Amino acid sequence: SASRLQLSGLCFLLQILTIILFAVFVRYSPESSPGLCSQQLNCSWRNQDLGFQHPRFRDVHLQALLGFGLLVAFLSRYGLGSVAISILIVAFAIQWAVLIQGFLYFFLNGKIYMGAQSMVSADFCTAAILISTGAVLGRVNPVQMLLLTLLGVTLFTLNEYILLSLMGVSDSGGSLTVHTFGAYFGLMVSRILHQPRMDKRKGQQDTGHQPDVFAVVGTVCLWIFWPSFTSATTARDNAEPWAVLNAYFSLVASTLATFVLSPLLYEESTLWMVQIQDATLASMAVMGMAGEMLVTPFGALITGFLAGLIPPLGFRFLTPVLCSRLKIQDTCGVHNVHGLPGILGALLGTLLTALATADAYGGRLELVFPLVAQGSRTTTDQALCQLCALPVTLLLATLGGSLTG
Amino acid sequence: SASRLQLSGLCFLLQILTIILFAVFVRYSPESSPGLCSQQLNCSWRNQDLGFQHPRFRDVHLQALLGFGLLVAFLSRYGLGSVAISILIVAFAIQWAVLIQGFLYFFLNGKIYMGAQSMVSADFCTAAILISTGAVLGRVNPVQMLLLTLLGVTLFTLNEYILLSLMGVSDSGGSLTVHTFGAYFGLMVSRILHQPRMDKRKGQQDTGHQPDVFAVVGTVCLWIFWPSFTSATTARDNAEPWAVLNAYFSLVASTLATFVLSPLLYEESTLWMVQIQDATLASMAVMGMAGEMLVTPFGALITGFLAGLIPPLGFRFLTPVLCSRLKIQDTCGVHNVHGLPGILGALLGTLLTALATADAYGGRLELVFPLVAQGSRTTTDQALCQLCALPVTLLLATLGGSLTG
Amino acid sequence: SASRLQLSGLCFLLQILTIILFAVFVRYSPESSPGLCSQQLNCSWRNQDLGFQHPRFRDVHLQALLGFGLLVAFLSRYGLGSVAISILIVAFAIQWAVLIQGFLYFFLNGKIYMGAQSMVSADFCTAAILISTGAVLGRVNPVQMLLLTLLGVTLFTLNEYILLSLMGVSDSGGSLTVHTFGAYFGLMVSRILHQPRMDKRKGQQDTGHQPDVFAVVGTVCLWIFWPSFTSATTARDNAEPWAVLNAYFSLVASTLATFVLSPLLYEESTLWMVQIQDATLASMAVMGMAGEMLVTPFGALITGFLAGLIPPLGFRFLTPVLCSRLKIQDTCGVHNVHGLPGILGALLGTLLTALATADAYGGRLELVFPLVAQGSRTTTDQALCQLCALPVTLLLATLGGSLTG
Repeated sequence: SASRLQLSGLCFLLQILTIILFAVFVRYSPESSPGLCSQQLNCSWRNQDLGFQHPRFRDVHLQALLGFGLLVAFLSRYGLGSVAISILIVAFAIQWAVLIQGFLYFFLNGKIYMGAQSMVSADFCTAAILISTGAVLGRVNPVQMLLLTLLGVTLFTLNEYILLSLMGVSDSGGSLTVHTFGAYFGLMVSRILHQPRMDKRKGQQDTGHQPDVFAVVGTVCLWIFWPSFTSATTARDNAEPWAVLNAYFSLVASTLATFVLSPLLYEESTLWMVQIQDATLASMAVMGMAGEMLVTPFGALITGFLAGLIPPLGFRFLTPVLCSRLKIQDTCGVHNVHGLPGILGALLGTLLTALATADAYGGRLELVFPLVAQGSRTTTDQALCQLCALPVTLLLATLGGSLTG
Repeated sequence: SASRLQLSGLCFLLQILTIILFAVFVRYSPESSPGLCSQQLNCSWRNQDLGFQHPRFRDVHLQALLGFGLLVAFLSRYGLGSVAISILIVAFAIQWAVLIQGFLYFFLNGKIYMGAQSMVSADFCTAAILISTGAVLGRVNPVQMLLLTLLGVTLFTLNEYILLSLMGVSDSGGSLTVHTFGAYFGLMVSRILHQPRMDKRKGQQDTGHQPDVFAVVGTVCLWIFWPSFTSATTARDNAEPWAVLNAYFSLVASTLATFVLSPLLYEESTLWMVQIQDATLASMAVMGMAGEMLVTPFGALITGFLAGLIPPLGFRFLTPVLCSRLKIQDTCGVHNVHGLPGILGALLGTLLTALATADAYGGRLELVFPLVAQGSRTTTDQALCQLCALPVTLLLATLGGSLTG
Repeated sequence: SASRLQLSGLCFLLQILTIILFAVFVRYSPESSPGLCSQQLNCSWRNQDLGFQHPRFRDVHLQALLGFGLLVAFLSRYGLGSVAISILIVAFAIQWAVLIQGFLYFFLNGKIYMGAQSMVSADFCTAAILISTGAVLGRVNPVQMLLLTLLGVTLFTLNEYILLSLMGVSDSGGSLTVHTFGAYFGLMVSRILHQPRMDKRKGQQDTGHQPDVFAVVGTVCLWIFWPSFTSATTARDNAEPWAVLNAYFSLVASTLATFVLSPLLYEESTLWMVQIQDATLASMAVMGMAGEMLVTPFGALITGFLAGLIPPLGFRFLTPVLCSRLKIQDTCGVHNVHGLPGILGALLGTLLTALATADAYGGRLELVFPLVAQGSRTTTDQALCQLCALPVTLLLATLGGSLTG
């Protein structure tokens, strides 16, 4: 009862705080006068304003929608009992992300000018927080969850700002910023909160990992929405949507990879549905950074196939090691599903950046690598930047996670 | 068996009647020659034709889609058993709404020229009817439901015509026309059909109010689609989507409000999911009229927070009073979820209208308050109109409901 | 265990084969230079390139999305147990369809240039394969399913190529290519695989045909997405969307038809939900070819009403005959839901083609019947072509099915 009172009070306090901060700082973006934006506000973020004015409104719809498509998938992993808490986390993370990201990206003359773009970036941030909570689910109470969200959103935004704005890394689908950061942040919190007596319940949690309606609906949602998601930030009307095609092929190949391994590892066919979902999420994580690059169709197939192999192997061989040696408990297996594929995706993105040539990309170059297109960087420099972003993200995630824990 | 025969016969008769009426009256709108529409037909309805030609087609998709997103949410409240009947109601309400609304809005030379716009307005009407049926669910048989739909659609269209076309009220999201009308119409029908012996089953119905997969899927659907929904009728390509942002913030704040009250009112955390859904629906109802106005981000947060407080308090303190004193049974709590928030939304819309200035709205003024922009009304007159629309709606809904009952 | 090993090995082999074929043949379409496409590649397929460049990208999203909306509906028919296998089928069918269709439509200089269009046509093909598997579900193992997919995709593409490219048939919604082909192909496979001892389990399968969450979610998905689906290939910005309106009315009328028959045929009201889903699918099949033609609103209502009557009558009177006389077992009733309505839709399309006049269609003529608009065919010739397409499809489907079986 005391904990319920605490939860109620904390929600009230946080909401009042947010309302006051919004009242003081947040205003609608003066988008109706488009000239203002490009001159005064830091609109170059995510390179979306150059010629992006027209289709922006609809893309926002798609993205906000996709962010929640993701949510459905996560929900399916965490079970019906924790859905209400997950939605609370989402509701608070969005408000907080609008504020924190506003201070970094949209701050001018003491006001945050927020527009549709703020919603999209808040959705990205929320996805990372949901991944983090997956690692500690069942071992922290709602009040701790809210505090974890408070710190997680702040650190996520800091990491994203360093990567995208300061280092000029291309990571439109969030391999690093969303999947890798979310996974390792959550894992470190889980490490710090480790309690020896919980180990016994591990076996029990594993058996609760059963296929249900949510797993099916979540997977189908990802299949439907994900190809649009990866391309939403980079879509141009007259360019063939590489990101969509790459996502599409990565997805189908990861599903076949599941069926290569699952029949060998698991006896019961009822567990296969969960494997498919894991593979789908892994293929998302691996294609996040490289999605808009020149992966080529067969490259996307190979990448997706490899990504689909990671979760089953990870659950079988890596999770027990993590649990016994490093004392990291990973309730929902975010390391296998988001962490490792995210790192693989970052390495793939680096490789493709190093191989990029102006001829192969054409007009697309300005979109994917604006700094290279402007001549201020070579593709090798860009590839180094992409590579450096990986340890930076890992460092921030682990340090932040330890601190939060 | 006799009732099943009745249902079958009534469906057959109504379908034959609709087919004949369609054959006599309904034709495709001659949209291919856009000049015709603006000159001869009453195309000024909902102020959508001025510059709306281009994105209309896709907006219609979104709206039709959203109408059914709503449906999913309603279904979750009414249980799997009544889903089939709900879909029957929807199927008939759409046909009938196209006819009735066609006679009022799109009638020319003895023919109804129907286009994509007819589908959208029929979907709005269907949403109101679904809200009404929520109040009487479980106490009327399918045949009565169909007759209630027949009258409800007619009265809804009449009310909508008076408000939008005659009084020039701005109510793009349907705070009054959909939520308030639907709730009070249903409640009056429920009052008239009151049978004392049913009172005993009230307690039983309350316990059946459990969280299930539908509540989760419905809530997530609303989260995904609602922000698009409120803005679909008012979207312009080069204007920042205020309605989307307002909806977004209202939504997240209402969720936090749920977590302020629910832990205090309810012991079991399993009931929280239903509270979240109620809060989500309430925040929709409250933001219906004001969505496209200058709510400001923190205003949207405050409004959403207040709206989220209404349903839990209403269920705890108001529903028992309604039931014992006024002998109104409210199976699904539509008064708390749609009625009261709808009234609050109308009052908020009135306030914001009175405060509107041409400077703050800019080019948006013509869109939100076309009569004010044309100079034929001051904002005070418009605010009075908005305010008068509330008693008109309540009167029509209660009278109509009594008559139908 | 041996069968699981077989499945794993086959998946691995097929994926490796696909990757190699993709590496050798498939390249991104050089869409960034739009001039190239219209000159060298066979871009006239499905008549979509004339003025279609601009909205293509979003339409693809919608279609890909819809393809999977369909999937959800199919899943609901086949039960949770077979979902994993269905997704495997989808994942492989998409890869194989991109290859096979690429060789027929997008082959140039020894390379397949694939773009967004390839995804859409692969989704169509996958839908047909899912229909086919519905007929044999529960009687073949996953390995046989994959081989059936391998042959089915090839034959589907052959049939589609003959109909659309060689004969110039208009079948944008796939009445013939998707529904009729898929149903009869599956039925013939089922006929060949007939085993007498299975007859006894028929009764048992029928009782397993219960309403569940999937039936509801699937039906609502179809209601939401189908009107967009039929129009996606033919949408123009300044033309009133006939296909959407036709789909919309066909849908609602088929639902009322369900309620005319179901109360008479079935005692329990819990079975009605499944009837609604069958009627919805049937109204999709019947409106596939005629959707973009001048059906008129009341014509769409009548067609939908008739289509809605087919499945309940078929299940009652035709399925037992099929089973006992022709020894064709039809696990999911694809003959009643897809086969017969598809044939009816083809006949309706023929009738409407014969009645088409340049006056009534206006600028739409070039879109629906490009060969007629170019003057190289009269409407009578076109109607004959549409009619001939029916026996061609039936012949290919039955021959192919026998061979595959």
